[in-house]
Amino acid sequence: MSHTFLEELHKGFAQQHTIEGKTLVDERSEFQHIMIFDAPAVGRVLVLDQIVQLTTRDECGYSEMLAHLPYFELKAKGITASRGLIIGGGDGAVAEEFLKHSSMSVVDMAEIDPKVIEHSKEYLKEAHKGAFDNSRLKVHVTDGAAFICEPSSIGAFDIIAADRPDPVGPAKVLFADEFYSSVSKALKPHGIALFQTGVPHFQQSELAETLPQLGRAFRHVGVVVSVVPTYVGGFMALTWASNGTKLGDAPFDAVAKAYQASGIKTDYYNADIHRASMALPNWMKRLMPG
Amino acid sequence: MSHTFLEELHKGFAQQHTIEGKTLVDERSEFQHIMIFDAPAVGRVLVLDQIVQLTTRDECGYSEMLAHLPYFELKAKGITASRGLIIGGGDGAVAEEFLKHSSMSVVDMAEIDPKVIEHSKEYLKEAHKGAFDNSRLKVHVTDGAAFICEPSSIGAFDIIAADRPDPVGPAKVLFADEFYSSVSKALKPHGIALFQTGVPHFQQSELAETLPQLGRAFRHVGVVVSVVPTYVGGFMALTWASNGTKLGDAPFDAVAKAYQASGIKTDYYNADIHRASMALPNWMKRLMPG
Repeated sequence: MSHTFLEELHKGFAQQHTIEGKTLVDERSEFQHIMIFDAPAVGRVLVLDQIVQLTTRDECGYSEMLAHLPYFELKAKGITASRGLIIGGGDGAVAEEFLKHSSMSVVDMAEIDPKVIEHSKEYLKEAHKGAFDNSRLKVHVTDGAAFICEPSSIGAFDIIAADRPDPVGPAKVLFADEFYSSVSKALKPHGIALFQTGVPHFQQSELAETLPQLGRAFRHVGVVVSVVPTYVGGFMALTWASNGTKLGDAPFDAVAKAYQASGIKTDYYNADIHRASMALPNWMKRLMPG
Repeated sequence: MSHTFLEELHKGFAQQHTIEGKTLVDERSEFQHIMIFDAPAVGRVLVLDQIVQLTTRDECGYSEMLAHLPYFELKAKGITASRGLIIGGGDGAVAEEFLKHSSMSVVDMAEIDPKVIEHSKEYLKEAHKGAFDNSRLKVHVTDGAAFICEPSSIGAFDIIAADRPDPVGPAKVLFADEFYSSVSKALKPHGIALFQTGVPHFQQSELAETLPQLGRAFRHVGVVVSVVPTYVGGFMALTWASNGTKLGDAPFDAVAKAYQASGIKTDYYNADIHRASMALPNWMKRLMPG
């Protein structure tokens, strides 16, 4: 067995990690190939279909942004979110972030692959910190694209976080027009949805294609950025969409006050980062349609 | 000859680029090993001692920030910079950015390795865009740490950009207390210096060690971040130091107005990015002493 993991997601570029010790999980589930291993530079790593999904050292830049950006944007506008939905997210890292807010009385997770949940529960405690034991987390082992269409999902959520992988394999449905339309209907009137939308430096078309799709399903759409070192390629794009509350126009002071008052501990997110995530470099603005 | 380039800068992590066609430069100079090649994912690449220094697709996130952050910070405060110094920077990319400002009547470059300049002139036109033909650029083929101590350097510069590689090989002197002390003396009273300070996700000690060093030589010090995909590891840190003007307290509107009035074209920098570069994630704040 090789003791090196190579991710070849982008043509002509690869990231390579030394695997430390024994590979903890190396299994083909019904849906995908799952690996979990320790790597000296980045901590414990979750890999699906040869693509890095999470490392314990940098997942904060991803999971905190999916949860706290929309939460504090709403809070700064006087709205206290009480129900969140995670599409995917079987590793529990985003769930842990939502659950930091005691106002979130129910957090639903729609994860298609029970094996991801099973192995994450055992090997990724540093990422989910026991979120699966929290009674406010409702785990649904099902296709997120189907879950979002259920009658009980209509108008149900303050925040929807599409913690989706790249548009390959079982995740393809999470990039379809039908999916966006269902997410739109599942939001409360003031609700905000965020979608993992790749690393534009290497995946320009993912951003360029997602925005017009969102534009057909929602009243407001936009892009924010985060920085997750092992999503190699610099800025990661999170597209957002809503029919009521925009993401990014809350006054800075109100966001800062809401964050401070919450008392939550974060490793990446803070009010300055909230505002900074709206700042796009010129080259990225040029990728965005009209 | 292998058609793959592997950078193993960080223990346990490597980035791999496919080399397209013939390697353009592969030569050991008096100071270092120099490579230039084309890579499909990132454009043309300059490598020194097996470490990526520049790619034509993402150098904007580095060179524009070294030049325009301090320039517009000063401009927003009513100070028009006229003289800049680049320590290193033999590829000409930072020089090109400084030269965009017609107010910069002289831009000095102190580059130790004439071979870097020679090959960059020939192969990296996309990065320097002919900066070497500009009569306002004064190229000094010399050690930057020595150049900065010359009597003519004392109090001479509005902006000093230490476009230094990692603290290995000939660049070690650019991380010494003596160097910082000389840079401090070479600034005009309102001057600002910026220093390449690595990628804190992988190089925590570089940031943690540089700040106290700067603190001993300057009145004000701090950290700003940029995102350069092939400086793999997420945020790149630029430490800054000054004895008069702080970097980061200019009013946003004044920066935005100065940028717009300048009419310069940038691929990365804009006023939002200027402000966003001051926002540090919590984990990075914790790396900073006291």
